[in-house]
Amino acid sequence: MTGRLFVIGTGPGNPAQTTPEASAAIAEAGHFFGYGPYLDRLSLRPNQQRHASDNREELARARAALDMAAGGAVVAVVSGGDPGVFAMAAAICEAVEAGPARYRAIDLTVVPGVTAMLAVAARAGAPLGHDFCAMSLSDNLKPWTLVERRLAAAADAGFVIALYNPISRARPWQLGRAFALLRTHLPGTVPVVFGRAAGRADENITVMPLGEADPAKADMATCVIVGSAETRLIDRPGRPPLVYAPRSAGALAERAGTT
Amino acid sequence: MTGRLFVIGTGPGNPAQTTPEASAAIAEAGHFFGYGPYLDRLSLRPNQQRHASDNREELARARAALDMAAGGAVVAVVSGGDPGVFAMAAAICEAVEAGPARYRAIDLTVVPGVTAMLAVAARAGAPLGHDFCAMSLSDNLKPWTLVERRLAAAADAGFVIALYNPISRARPWQLGRAFALLRTHLPGTVPVVFGRAAGRADENITVMPLGEADPAKADMATCVIVGSAETRLIDRPGRPPLVYAPRSAGALAERAGTT
Repeated sequence: MTGRLFVIGTGPGNPAQTTPEASAAIAEAGHFFGYGPYLDRLSLRPNQQRHASDNREELARARAALDMAAGGAVVAVVSGGDPGVFAMAAAICEAVEAGPARYRAIDLTVVPGVTAMLAVAARAGAPLGHDFCAMSLSDNLKPWTLVERRLAAAADAGFVIALYNPISRARPWQLGRAFALLRTHLPGTVPVVFGRAAGRADENITVMPLGEADPAKADMATCVIVGSAETRLIDRPGRPPLVYAPRSAGALAERAGTT
Repeated sequence: MTGRLFVIGTGPGNPAQTTPEASAAIAEAGHFFGYGPYLDRLSLRPNQQRHASDNREELARARAALDMAAGGAVVAVVSGGDPGVFAMAAAICEAVEAGPARYRAIDLTVVPGVTAMLAVAARAGAPLGHDFCAMSLSDNLKPWTLVERRLAAAADAGFVIALYNPISRARPWQLGRAFALLRTHLPGTVPVVFGRAAGRADENITVMPLGEADPAKADMATCVIVGSAETRLIDRPGRPPLVYAPRSAGALAERAGTT
């Protein structure tokens, strides 16, 4: 007999941003796998069992969850944000591909969520309003040369760039190196949004030009959005500025002609 | 006096994927602006007023909503998915920047939602599990040459590509042209996911190799995800296949060495 496996995204951390679908899946599951701080956000019943693990043990965690589901349990693997964006859904799929046939028989449901860049973008205005990309700055699982190649390609092609995993104790220099590289491809005036804990009580949204962007403004809980050359900044008296991507790639020229 | 403006994303269309934050904002607002079919999904009270408009009138709609909020009303502009991804938040910001000072005094809140590519990705496995980009295929507001340049840059740099607005009656050839271009940059075996109405009753998720990808499989309600050369497909007996992006850019080599 086989059980069921939910891979659940709880959103950015504010319970009001967790979908009813995710809440229902959490209520249904008996066993919970995930990074401790994500599991801490859940209000579990006494008969729901936590299996917390370190953030760097994704594949081992995936196998443990799959084994338990294959044995008949209803299991939840929990990610913050969306489980499909630099999170557990890919690790689960990897474990299924490399694992025994019983993993492929599991009733697997991925429950999407509001990923960090969307929550940060909402607080800043609409910086992802036109073509954009999302990249992990971690070079744990890919060479740094590939990160740099992708940053350069994205900036040159005019994509706004959302950076996940920008910095950590074990990866202290990558964000500074990324900013330095991007300054050689983009004007120093391009707005950069540092979005920490968007939607939560300790939220902190900071906007600064790329030329002055300070990696020390970011930590593990920060999503950084680097604008394109077309990104606009609107000052508002008594309110934070709005950062947005014009819907039209010809908007700059059009504005120059009319104002 | 000034009112309040919510720019709300209702998610992919399944009410279970609308966040409580979005539902609360909908309950609070008195006036609703948006594309008719999105407004039709809301269960409004008799004293909540609908102002439906055509999908192509985004800027006029933004101005009408801003005028009403500036006059003191509590106004909601409603998008499906996330309002910050190829939707109304950017149009609102554009209207604020070009508009009168009273627009900048409005209490503006963007409420994020689950955008289409996340819902489609969840149904397919984890195709957005590593670096990816999101592009609109519409050439209404940007030249087609720029679309082609971005497609080529993204494919060459190894980004998975999520395509919004892939096709419409007025834009019948763009998706086919995009597939043809991508075939010159990526192997024909790369999985392409056509995700229509993900999470809704009429959901249809189809996976086919890029070499055989048929633009006729898409319509206005479809989000198309084109994999990278590293994207994997897992067959499962009696279940739909899983499509995912390995977390590691070295995974191909590693797998080749162990199997």
